Amino acid sequence: MQKYEAPIKDIEYLINSVFKINNYSNLDRFKKINPEITTMILEEASKFTQNVLLPLNQSGDSEGCKFEEGDVKTPDGFKEAYNTFIKGGWSSLTFDEEFGGQGLPTIIGVIVSEMIVSTNMAFGMYPGLTQGAYKAIEKIGNSEQKKLYLPKFSDGKWTGTMNLTEAHCGTDLGLIKTKAEPCPDGSYLITGSKIFISAGEHDLSENIVHLVLARLPDAPTGIKGISLFIVPKFLSNDNGELTDKNNVKCLSIENKMGIKASSTCEMKYESATGYLLGEKNKGMKAMFIMMNEARLGVGIQGLGMSEVAYQSAAEYTKDRLQGRSLNSPVNPELPADPIIVHPDVRRMLLSVKSFNESARALSIWIALNIDIAEHHPDSDTKKNASEFLALMTPIAKAFLTDTSFENVNLALQCYGGHGYIRDHGMEQFVRDTRITQLYEGTSGIQALDLVGRKLPQDMGRLLRQFFHPVDKFIKENISDKDISDIIMPLAKSFARLQQASAWVAENGMSNPNEAAGASSDYLKLFGIVTLGYMWAMMAKTSLSKLNEKDSDKQFHQDKINLSKFYMNKILPETSSLLSKITAGSKTLMSIESSNF
Amino acid sequence: MQKYEAPIKDIEYLINSVFKINNYSNLDRFKKINPEITTMILEEASKFTQNVLLPLNQSGDSEGCKFEEGDVKTPDGFKEAYNTFIKGGWSSLTFDEEFGGQGLPTIIGVIVSEMIVSTNMAFGMYPGLTQGAYKAIEKIGNSEQKKLYLPKFSDGKWTGTMNLTEAHCGTDLGLIKTKAEPCPDGSYLITGSKIFISAGEHDLSENIVHLVLARLPDAPTGIKGISLFIVPKFLSNDNGELTDKNNVKCLSIENKMGIKASSTCEMKYESATGYLLGEKNKGMKAMFIMMNEARLGVGIQGLGMSEVAYQSAAEYTKDRLQGRSLNSPVNPELPADPIIVHPDVRRMLLSVKSFNESARALSIWIALNIDIAEHHPDSDTKKNASEFLALMTPIAKAFLTDTSFENVNLALQCYGGHGYIRDHGMEQFVRDTRITQLYEGTSGIQALDLVGRKLPQDMGRLLRQFFHPVDKFIKENISDKDISDIIMPLAKSFARLQQASAWVAENGMSNPNEAAGASSDYLKLFGIVTLGYMWAMMAKTSLSKLNEKDSDKQFHQDKINLSKFYMNKILPETSSLLSKITAGSKTLMSIESSNF
Repeated sequence: MQKYEAPIKDIEYLINSVFKINNYSNLDRFKKINPEITTMILEEASKFTQNVLLPLNQSGDSEGCKFEEGDVKTPDGFKEAYNTFIKGGWSSLTFDEEFGGQGLPTIIGVIVSEMIVSTNMAFGMYPGLTQGAYKAIEKIGNSEQKKLYLPKFSDGKWTGTMNLTEAHCGTDLGLIKTKAEPCPDGSYLITGSKIFISAGEHDLSENIVHLVLARLPDAPTGIKGISLFIVPKFLSNDNGELTDKNNVKCLSIENKMGIKASSTCEMKYESATGYLLGEKNKGMKAMFIMMNEARLGVGIQGLGMSEVAYQSAAEYTKDRLQGRSLNSPVNPELPADPIIVHPDVRRMLLSVKSFNESARALSIWIALNIDIAEHHPDSDTKKNASEFLALMTPIAKAFLTDTSFENVNLALQCYGGHGYIRDHGMEQFVRDTRITQLYEGTSGIQALDLVGRKLPQDMGRLLRQFFHPVDKFIKENISDKDISDIIMPLAKSFARLQQASAWVAENGMSNPNEAAGASSDYLKLFGIVTLGYMWAMMAKTSLSKLNEKDSDKQFHQDKINLSKFYMNKILPETSSLLSKITAGSKTLMSIESSNF
Repeated sequence: MQKYEAPIKDIEYLINSVFKINNYSNLDRFKKINPEITTMILEEASKFTQNVLLPLNQSGDSEGCKFEEGDVKTPDGFKEAYNTFIKGGWSSLTFDEEFGGQGLPTIIGVIVSEMIVSTNMAFGMYPGLTQGAYKAIEKIGNSEQKKLYLPKFSDGKWTGTMNLTEAHCGTDLGLIKTKAEPCPDGSYLITGSKIFISAGEHDLSENIVHLVLARLPDAPTGIKGISLFIVPKFLSNDNGELTDKNNVKCLSIENKMGIKASSTCEMKYESATGYLLGEKNKGMKAMFIMMNEARLGVGIQGLGMSEVAYQSAAEYTKDRLQGRSLNSPVNPELPADPIIVHPDVRRMLLSVKSFNESARALSIWIALNIDIAEHHPDSDTKKNASEFLALMTPIAKAFLTDTSFENVNLALQCYGGHGYIRDHGMEQFVRDTRITQLYEGTSGIQALDLVGRKLPQDMGRLLRQFFHPVDKFIKENISDKDISDIIMPLAKSFARLQQASAWVAENGMSNPNEAAGASSDYLKLFGIVTLGYMWAMMAKTSLSKLNEKDSDKQFHQDKINLSKFYMNKILPETSSLLSKITAGSKTLMSIESSNF
């Protein structure tokens, strides 16, 4: 009973009415779209994802990937679906035209990604990883590398991976042992083992291009001695024609909780030929290009999973007849009412729905800033957008995935015992979503990034990229009686966020454990307020639309109602979070490690 | 890396020092134990569960139960383990001596149950269901029924089940269709289908005794027309010797998210011979005997899973070397520190640990009251204990399982990406625990039971069974400076609970949707305050122990520290919950069902 319809109307509302993307036509990429073209793309994406990917989601989960003598077979139908995917041009939406891409704005990419995740998260891993590899080579590759690899990524014939983790170190990349020895011809011989490599081996593409972190012989110890290498599965000539198999092996694939149709590989490099990407010993910087891209992608995965789980639960609660409304029967002629009449069932559904719609707004806001940061003519505007992204990346990654996991569980809960049965497909959502809190840096790592790197940077300068627009919005609207019941709670929780920020900055300065101890609660507080701001923007938009002649009044009234639900039932969590933060870290540190 | 050691020291502390069970020696059952006997039982239980059950936990999960032509084969080793279980007398700890049991206090049963769940939750389902069947027959069976079935349950040769749910109705039992036709000999012919029957078919015992809800031909409609029947898999003579196979069939078993080694059966009764248990059309009352027993059992499952997940995570975080302490290296001679040095890792571990120790205290408090309610000589004391149990049952069921699910996920999170890999065993804990929020009435149903039945009963009389002791405790200790930093937060959150109770009572009276809309938040608030009270009791106990000459000062200091953690980092949630509750249900009901 996995059910999905792409939320096209909601997307159009966000891009046209809330974020008014026609204001951005000064950017080249936005000249290529208008509301009609966008709608056409959305409708095609919706057809592809609903008709091709969704039917493979449950079968992909039960079959999983199969490993045999170094090869990985994806589940039945995946190869055909991937071919349809690349034929439809879905692999190259946002890639540069110079390299065979379509040069569309990032918002289009983000929206289509959400649909792919909703209908088949495991499938989406293969092109998702390629995206990160594309960005890294685009930004730091030399012109030959760009010319060779990027068109292959665009047409989807080659896919990419990120090879960071080794068995003894995940987060702490300074400990990695994989070695790179220089050859006389300028290439390198890469030797070492990597684990948890998504899409490290599979049967969808002709070639797989691994970006591998390794250490040069003369490299400094720790993270300052790491370089990034391109290590293809098959070597090729300059025209991209495959020549020899490289010394790259997939040793095994992991048996995981979920995303079983996505191969998670243990990779072995034995004097494999590699090419330096970017500068020597600057691998961490290169890695962060991929990583930031990937982190935002994982945040979108949270949203996509929460959306499909919500839709599947909403459908069920409208169909399932059991019990009676507590006031008066809704279906007096039938033996029972649908369970959606119950306030507690609605509480669960609305918690998820109010997250989805505001998280989608946030993802579009972030996507807009990606294009501004990369393509805006004004350098200050560019810089501001980059800072906004740096601030929002850990929040989007951790808050969207942590809340998504709660949400898919609420959606499962709406099914009662039936949610626990595999056929119904709800428990797959829970298993699949669980990885998003772990990979590309756990939620705890994101929280540390927020309080340890982003918050202190330039004396809190990054914070202003969020605080200023919110502050301005509140000041402009606080005396508007029509939305005071929305702006007042936002203002209150925004004040809590400011207070928490000051507390973390002040106490973290003298004792880093204070910032770290508060970090997860602080990130959550930040996330809740961010979505609160999204809801206030939507409420304001819809309120003005209510007065327009031909507007869909019910649609806009529901947005306002849902905004009020968020203020009433979600925003209050900020008060507890502030208390927990300001309680400090003393009780976290008072028990000896050995007494745990 | 599933790791478990029975928390014997903690249990002894709770029963001897905190709840001082030697005060209960006026109850017959308590005459059979003393600290030495109790320790002996705990140590034996710990050996059995660690050595026999834990090694079968992961293999049981990967093998699962196998269904073949109506038979169910449990995973390898389960039958041998079950034989060891019954030979060790673990099936009959709390059953009456008259019926072959050992007549031990319920606290012993509850403690051993927790150990069984921690080491193999799926295995525990088989004897767990038998327990409910035992209680139902003991309380409402006639003397022949007791004589025939109870000794068989005691020696574990026969097991029991509860047959309630049908495909079209879970919670709403008024809709069930299974029929019972009277026969001239006083027996009945039972016809119908049941789903989600745990332990409905398996190969562990010689016979399976199904307790089946069905409807007599002349029964009133709805839940007032339901009766309960004993329907054994094999019929027997009065001596319990098996005669004919009854017309009971297992049609299939469910493919589930977790507890895969526990069979979940679809049962078919085709004119199967059944015997009325209790009075005609009073099946719901009989059902609630089993159900209340089962609900408390499920709460204990929450605790047991949270405990084993905690221990497995604590071990890992002490072993896993990655990164550095933010202040100064703990392991300067090694390349990295263990990850337990990080405040955010400690936050996760302590959240779970502080739950486990206080939830265990609550489970012992409840167990004590079960024995008082059943065996105390004074009728007022008995009645008070029954009321306390009625109040606490939905809280123990929903709060302990909802929090446990959060906890097993926090424990998995401590493993990073490794937590997602099946071999490490953490994801099994998540999959297994997820069912506890669903069966025997979802968490939402418990919350409705709390606000709809328990709260209004006798004008709030039940509430007093919790409010009075807490109020008294706070008054007695509030001016004690040594624990004011523990009592003050408790008092504050207890006041919030009182305020929320008044709000729910008042607003629920005029509009049931107000009570229902607040119900889940209210139950959670109640649960958090309840564990807060447990922590305050433990802190007081440990504070006085600190001054005793031969006490384990580190143990007691850690209890006080953990109590402070709870007050600092968990209790603050009560403020948000109160805000959400008093925000009312209007925003829950404002969107039309069709617009979800």
